Amino acid sequence: MRIKCTVSYDGTAYSGFQVQPEKRTVQSEIEAALAKLHKGGRIKITGSGRTDAGVHAKGQVIHFDTPLNLPEEKWPVALNSLLPGDIAVLKAEKTDSGFHARYDARGKEYRYYILRSRQRDPFLRSHAYQYSFPLDIDRMREGAEYLLGTHDFTSFCAAKTEVEDKVRTLTAVEFLEEGSLLVIRFAGNGFLYNMVRILTGTLLETGRGDREPKELREILAKKDRTAAGKTAPGHGLYLWEVFY
Amino acid sequence: MRIKCTVSYDGTAYSGFQVQPEKRTVQSEIEAALAKLHKGGRIKITGSGRTDAGVHAKGQVIHFDTPLNLPEEKWPVALNSLLPGDIAVLKAEKTDSGFHARYDARGKEYRYYILRSRQRDPFLRSHAYQYSFPLDIDRMREGAEYLLGTHDFTSFCAAKTEVEDKVRTLTAVEFLEEGSLLVIRFAGNGFLYNMVRILTGTLLETGRGDREPKELREILAKKDRTAAGKTAPGHGLYLWEVFY
Repeated sequence: MRIKCTVSYDGTAYSGFQVQPEKRTVQSEIEAALAKLHKGGRIKITGSGRTDAGVHAKGQVIHFDTPLNLPEEKWPVALNSLLPGDIAVLKAEKTDSGFHARYDARGKEYRYYILRSRQRDPFLRSHAYQYSFPLDIDRMREGAEYLLGTHDFTSFCAAKTEVEDKVRTLTAVEFLEEGSLLVIRFAGNGFLYNMVRILTGTLLETGRGDREPKELREILAKKDRTAAGKTAPGHGLYLWEVFY
Repeated sequence: MRIKCTVSYDGTAYSGFQVQPEKRTVQSEIEAALAKLHKGGRIKITGSGRTDAGVHAKGQVIHFDTPLNLPEEKWPVALNSLLPGDIAVLKAEKTDSGFHARYDARGKEYRYYILRSRQRDPFLRSHAYQYSFPLDIDRMREGAEYLLGTHDFTSFCAAKTEVEDKVRTLTAVEFLEEGSLLVIRFAGNGFLYNMVRILTGTLLETGRGDREPKELREILAKKDRTAAGKTAPGHGLYLWEVFY
């Protein structure tokens, strides 16, 4: 039986989602919990995509196959009792055996949290990127307009990537202000490696006044990673939702 | 010169505020940073009061004496560069040598964070008390009315305490609902050991239906710790502000 799970995690203590030798990862914690539940039987999980070290998830989606026939509502209870407190299975659904967490994803939403303050906040140190330079959000909004739609996002993709087709569609880039937090909401049909973090870094440079908003269009046209801005740090990023 | 500092900390990694042998405490971290700043000279700090293991602070106040004559605005910068990321000095003020962070405090505000959910939240696991039973906030409000004003709070004080006078004045007990969070705001002229956590535990039992609101008055009258409810856990509690 194939199970689809929605999972939230605080990425602070993890070297990212995907299993890596000698590293603590979200995938290895979930697979360890599944192994206990299956009395040692190894169950491999597949995520909708990787998240990097320190990156958080409010709604990562995974699937796995299991011989156990638990009712849907029992899966979160059983797994959460075996998982560390910084990972939570929010929901489990029985799904048909053709479902695939990565291949079937029609789109994703990410949110990037920026703490606009010169004063550090002990409660957000691993959960928002502290940015002490003043930001002109209108400039960021204007720059973001050029990013919407279907483009080759090569300039906004980490150079070390194996993906060939770098055309993606961004359907939303929104700026939400919550007190001293600026949250940038990105939605699209798919995201390249480090894409949200490079988009954020470049938009921050625009908001700070180091780039003109119309440069965003030029950066896209160059199809060159070095044309874009810095990669914003992982700890401000949240995989918010995966759409199927 | 005497310096008054406002300090915020995430208490998760600490065995409370006050120095204890072999334990990591907020006071020992701040004193270690001050020692570095004073080239090894020991500077003792005095807080407005202790906080227990896991308890957080948004506005703890401390004072210390120093031979250094730094401008006020340099103190937070200098100390924060030496402190771990889960402690932040928010503000420093030069004060007269008679100022005392504990004795001069006229009042305090605490807030207690309750996550009303059956689903755990990886981001709040150390920052709010997850409470899965349904709560009737109106019952809690009604019970809290009996607590307002000047009373002997012996019933709401941990038995192991050295304080003799247990009369305190509660000026506010407010219930703030923020999504699935219930925040109880307590303000008063002073708080006994574990008082906010015992008040919270007893109010939760009232909201859950295990106690009648009017029992709060009877519990006060008994002057007996065993008459009140359970001590709510430390990780939901924030020392919010100290008034002088």
